[in-house]
Amino acid sequence: MKNTLGNSVCVTLFGESHGAQIGAVLDGLAPGIPVDEALIAHQLELRRPAGKISTARREQDAFSIVSGVFEGKTTGTPLTILIPNEDTRSGDYRRGPVRPGHADYTAYVKYHGYEDYRGGGHFSGRITAALTAAGAIATGALRRRNILIGTHVARCAGISDAAFRDPESEIIRLNEMPFAVLDEERGAAMRAAIEKAAESGDSVGGILETLVTGMPAGIGEPWFDTLESMLAHGLFGIPAVKGVEFGDGFALADRKGSEANDAFYLRDGKPATATNHNGGINGGISNGMTMVFRCAVKPTPSIRLPQQTVNLREGREEELSLGGRHDPAIVHRARVVADSVTALVLCDALAMRYGTDWLRGDPT
Amino acid sequence: MKNTLGNSVCVTLFGESHGAQIGAVLDGLAPGIPVDEALIAHQLELRRPAGKISTARREQDAFSIVSGVFEGKTTGTPLTILIPNEDTRSGDYRRGPVRPGHADYTAYVKYHGYEDYRGGGHFSGRITAALTAAGAIATGALRRRNILIGTHVARCAGISDAAFRDPESEIIRLNEMPFAVLDEERGAAMRAAIEKAAESGDSVGGILETLVTGMPAGIGEPWFDTLESMLAHGLFGIPAVKGVEFGDGFALADRKGSEANDAFYLRDGKPATATNHNGGINGGISNGMTMVFRCAVKPTPSIRLPQQTVNLREGREEELSLGGRHDPAIVHRARVVADSVTALVLCDALAMRYGTDWLRGDPT
Amino acid sequence: MKNTLGNSVCVTLFGESHGAQIGAVLDGLAPGIPVDEALIAHQLELRRPAGKISTARREQDAFSIVSGVFEGKTTGTPLTILIPNEDTRSGDYRRGPVRPGHADYTAYVKYHGYEDYRGGGHFSGRITAALTAAGAIATGALRRRNILIGTHVARCAGISDAAFRDPESEIIRLNEMPFAVLDEERGAAMRAAIEKAAESGDSVGGILETLVTGMPAGIGEPWFDTLESMLAHGLFGIPAVKGVEFGDGFALADRKGSEANDAFYLRDGKPATATNHNGGINGGISNGMTMVFRCAVKPTPSIRLPQQTVNLREGREEELSLGGRHDPAIVHRARVVADSVTALVLCDALAMRYGTDWLRGDPT
Amino acid sequence: MKNTLGNSVCVTLFGESHGAQIGAVLDGLAPGIPVDEALIAHQLELRRPAGKISTARREQDAFSIVSGVFEGKTTGTPLTILIPNEDTRSGDYRRGPVRPGHADYTAYVKYHGYEDYRGGGHFSGRITAALTAAGAIATGALRRRNILIGTHVARCAGISDAAFRDPESEIIRLNEMPFAVLDEERGAAMRAAIEKAAESGDSVGGILETLVTGMPAGIGEPWFDTLESMLAHGLFGIPAVKGVEFGDGFALADRKGSEANDAFYLRDGKPATATNHNGGINGGISNGMTMVFRCAVKPTPSIRLPQQTVNLREGREEELSLGGRHDPAIVHRARVVADSVTALVLCDALAMRYGTDWLRGDPT
Repeated sequence: MKNTLGNSVCVTLFGESHGAQIGAVLDGLAPGIPVDEALIAHQLELRRPAGKISTARREQDAFSIVSGVFEGKTTGTPLTILIPNEDTRSGDYRRGPVRPGHADYTAYVKYHGYEDYRGGGHFSGRITAALTAAGAIATGALRRRNILIGTHVARCAGISDAAFRDPESEIIRLNEMPFAVLDEERGAAMRAAIEKAAESGDSVGGILETLVTGMPAGIGEPWFDTLESMLAHGLFGIPAVKGVEFGDGFALADRKGSEANDAFYLRDGKPATATNHNGGINGGISNGMTMVFRCAVKPTPSIRLPQQTVNLREGREEELSLGGRHDPAIVHRARVVADSVTALVLCDALAMRYGTDWLRGDPT
Repeated sequence: MKNTLGNSVCVTLFGESHGAQIGAVLDGLAPGIPVDEALIAHQLELRRPAGKISTARREQDAFSIVSGVFEGKTTGTPLTILIPNEDTRSGDYRRGPVRPGHADYTAYVKYHGYEDYRGGGHFSGRITAALTAAGAIATGALRRRNILIGTHVARCAGISDAAFRDPESEIIRLNEMPFAVLDEERGAAMRAAIEKAAESGDSVGGILETLVTGMPAGIGEPWFDTLESMLAHGLFGIPAVKGVEFGDGFALADRKGSEANDAFYLRDGKPATATNHNGGINGGISNGMTMVFRCAVKPTPSIRLPQQTVNLREGREEELSLGGRHDPAIVHRARVVADSVTALVLCDALAMRYGTDWLRGDPT
Repeated sequence: MKNTLGNSVCVTLFGESHGAQIGAVLDGLAPGIPVDEALIAHQLELRRPAGKISTARREQDAFSIVSGVFEGKTTGTPLTILIPNEDTRSGDYRRGPVRPGHADYTAYVKYHGYEDYRGGGHFSGRITAALTAAGAIATGALRRRNILIGTHVARCAGISDAAFRDPESEIIRLNEMPFAVLDEERGAAMRAAIEKAAESGDSVGGILETLVTGMPAGIGEPWFDTLESMLAHGLFGIPAVKGVEFGDGFALADRKGSEANDAFYLRDGKPATATNHNGGINGGISNGMTMVFRCAVKPTPSIRLPQQTVNLREGREEELSLGGRHDPAIVHRARVVADSVTALVLCDALAMRYGTDWLRGDPT
Repeated sequence: MKNTLGNSVCVTLFGESHGAQIGAVLDGLAPGIPVDEALIAHQLELRRPAGKISTARREQDAFSIVSGVFEGKTTGTPLTILIPNEDTRSGDYRRGPVRPGHADYTAYVKYHGYEDYRGGGHFSGRITAALTAAGAIATGALRRRNILIGTHVARCAGISDAAFRDPESEIIRLNEMPFAVLDEERGAAMRAAIEKAAESGDSVGGILETLVTGMPAGIGEPWFDTLESMLAHGLFGIPAVKGVEFGDGFALADRKGSEANDAFYLRDGKPATATNHNGGINGGISNGMTMVFRCAVKPTPSIRLPQQTVNLREGREEELSLGGRHDPAIVHRARVVADSVTALVLCDALAMRYGTDWLRGDPT
């Protein structure tokens, strides 16, 4: 479905970096969910570039909801969020050399040169603002059911954050932090490394780790709508994500079965697992434990350092040194995008299982 | 779509470990593609358990194609492959303790206890035989277009295989090997480690690395049908896969942008990249380079070593020591399943872009 | 999705008239639904050719369910029904003149001549046996919720049946009748007209009228998954259906608004309509009244009378007089197919609204 | 997919009668198609209420395209059209009696009372303005391939229009007419009948007949994406459409096979049919002849004449006499909506068959 994600709860993205407006249509969410504009603004703020570790592009993200909300609540019909583009300096961009690591060349081939190439066009990370706004509404809906989502920068520029110890409270704290880490000192070290990369005209990558608490058991479908399939499908839509793993993920490859299996015991009369190597998912279906997964985020491809590339217009090789305003890292900004995709996918999976109205229920 | 994968070229899986028949319906593949039953048998042979490093369950996989083929070629209408189950010893299984690391508990919750629990039922790896058979037909169709897919056991039991050096020829060789490695000595070491794990009643995991050569540039769709999203969606449907990464994947998290970008140059007048850190995909769209991705395969959860678990029928905790016939590793058998999913997803992506008949063309 | 119908509850059809087996995969139906093989056999019997008003082709329809049922109940995973083809006299068919009114020519163009042309191949009405078998399971599931579906031959060969007077009891009676009419005398006249057409080497058409009682209000989705859209999508998949109308349908075109609107009143404290010109659907969503719709079934295109056509193999015009065994009418046999499509679509619409498990509930 | 129609070329609708903006996202259309804003304005003009035979609501339909167009051409990425609502007099509306024949009651049940009830909210015919704008772009794309779509008011208020005699030229003429008829005198009689109904506080219905010329043979998919299924799915999304028939439709029910089949002959060496009772579609697939279908449009449910209904807020029966501004007929306005749905569905069907870029080609 190209720019649409989801089966029952669907989000459709549109817009370009230098177009008039970007936006999202969120369809199929239950009626009667309070739409918290402050939460949308907050999530957009978390995504917004800020300080020396981000692009200098100023984005106000003055969103407006033009359909699907009535008297402050979702109607159940398509909810459309618009965000006008501001401060677009198209003069900084012109068709020419394709930027290594970007979609410039592949978009050119796919669209036969008709794509809006300015600032990455439809492939710009800018579009994630619309995704974030839509995700904020899904996030709010899940919170009323005590399903909490939180992501931290588990690794950046070669520096690792601490591990989760008390997910529920840590998630709440992370969701307020512009640079989401569990250990503030390591976060400071990461930021320093980002600044250093920026000074040298380079960029850095990282790993995002997402936890979901409160997810009921029994969600997900064999063989091809497993929770892992659905989440990965959405997460790989986030620009720069090049890897997704669940539970202990790639580390499981080196384990024995006796080290990878999660033993069951009875907790309050219900099966629970003593460990969580499988990240809350067995056979593609949630098992009621905390869900855990990680996304590898590659370093921002836009860098000032000179790179070899090809100028499509002129049909020749050339050296490219990107001016303009660029992010030396996006992993910390991508965090809230990962949260948003997670929220949207989980709303969809829950609606497929429990019907369109389950999220409508009063908060528990 | 639950048990169906794909938009234009779709595969639907059905069956249970101890049911009468398993099978797959492959719909939407172009007409006029020769159906090579020997290739299907060969791919099934690669998946089949063999020797001390696999379960002793004997599977003949005597498949039959009951629709969609006429005079040896695809008709373009649904192609159905049936594989009868043989040598099922249901006596080895009974409802009782849920096996850690398996879908026993989650299937019970999802299906309210109505699931066929014998041998994992519909969640059994057995179903991948049907997926492999369908994938073989897709694989054959792609080969006629010089799109080649090959997977090796890049890592198993902590031992790494060599790296690709000459993908096209190595892929052809891998596709003939029961235990697919680039370096036979390391492969022998892996097999020894698997046997050793089997002796101790345990199991091991590994990493599969897949390469695709000959893929045209311009395939994949923003934002939510990127090649990475589509492939990951299918690959996470394979039991035991807990991680998927493209190009350098998680290793990119520790790189600088200058180390992660792939510089472009002109090769025979067309843009090509000097390196391939992005695995042949930029912005979710193929760039014409070799596609590279890896799947983390967790160790087989069925082990003889005692494990703590819960007996759902009796509502109490108990210790479980699995008898029966189990695989001490499945990574080498999962190899051809990864190939199959890849072939099916690429046929779908190509059909979405070029139409239903592109694969029909004579081999180039 | 080509040969797959549905979003949450899906059916996939496969097979050809002269292939080895035809069948259906029914995926997404709730677990725990008793599978009544006698009901499947009964529905297949209703579809089966019989007497002088049908083809002489003998069809035993010895179906087998090879997956998705455990201990007599649905598991919730894909349920596959196979029906072997018997008594196929391929000698009666060979590539040659395209039969007017059939898919022979269009299939040839679409599949570039690779289609299985024998007896209509995948386009044969024979495939509706598989659809009927799958529909029988959906029908059984709905009955447990007191949702009843019944269809009568409202018109055939220019003769009209009586109108419904007491839908619930009449539906139950219709579902037992080989030639489903409300007025047996008119049914006898229809059968006589069919026999007469058969004698003259011709065929006749008719209209099927379907009623659904017990459908809850609030099912269906604007703008593009209205109940009317979903039902029409499925019903137009039935061969020979060339028109679908809901409520008073085309007759509404000549009415005034004051004659077409259904006034509301309170019945047991709940809104109900005094008339039912809109067939139980307002704005695409069920209103809790009896659902009513009709399908126009064209006369069987296979006739003995000579027709002008084109021989594709020889590239010339020729006169065609069809031998073999053909139905002088299919409207009475298509009845149970309409019931089946209706049942499958309603199960899907209910599952989208109420979740995958609503139909699992104990019968009310 | 609720508010989204299509597989490869998709349109998503949003908005409410009295919301801030309505709009459509058109995704998947080929790149490089000139976007003719004059054609969009023209189609919106054809849909706009005018004169005594329409509501007095003034709609400027000042659309803007905010994404997906670059340098006057489609980019191939989502194209979003926004239309602000103006002249909305919400004071004319308040929650209260449900209007017979409208979605008021069913929306209330479906959305638990959270729906925007003002002026029909998301169910308002107003939303068809967005559908028309999106359809205009699809229409323009098809015209460059010489695929022409035209609809006339075949019947209104009991008066029939003339039949097509020279489809290609008549389609071009119809597409310029505010009240599209082949015979202007009969059109004048229809308009007089509409005015008369308006004076008496009532409304009238009608039948739309659509023709498509230039459609290539071989488009459509068995069993469930037949052209008839796809078109009917979209057409039943149009408010007030209660019947859809292809070719001779319901009239075929009374025919003999010898009268319903279309004999083939060779025209310029290619098979063509001498008659067109099947409306250009055999077995659900286009046969290269002119496509013909009709939609039954019920009389506008909003009438001034008093009607019995239920007041949901107060839980009692009451008599309702609708004030406000209403259309005494919408069949003539719905014409361009039928054209739009047809264009969108055909672009989708062509893209599924020939790939995403077929429409990009230069006009032939």
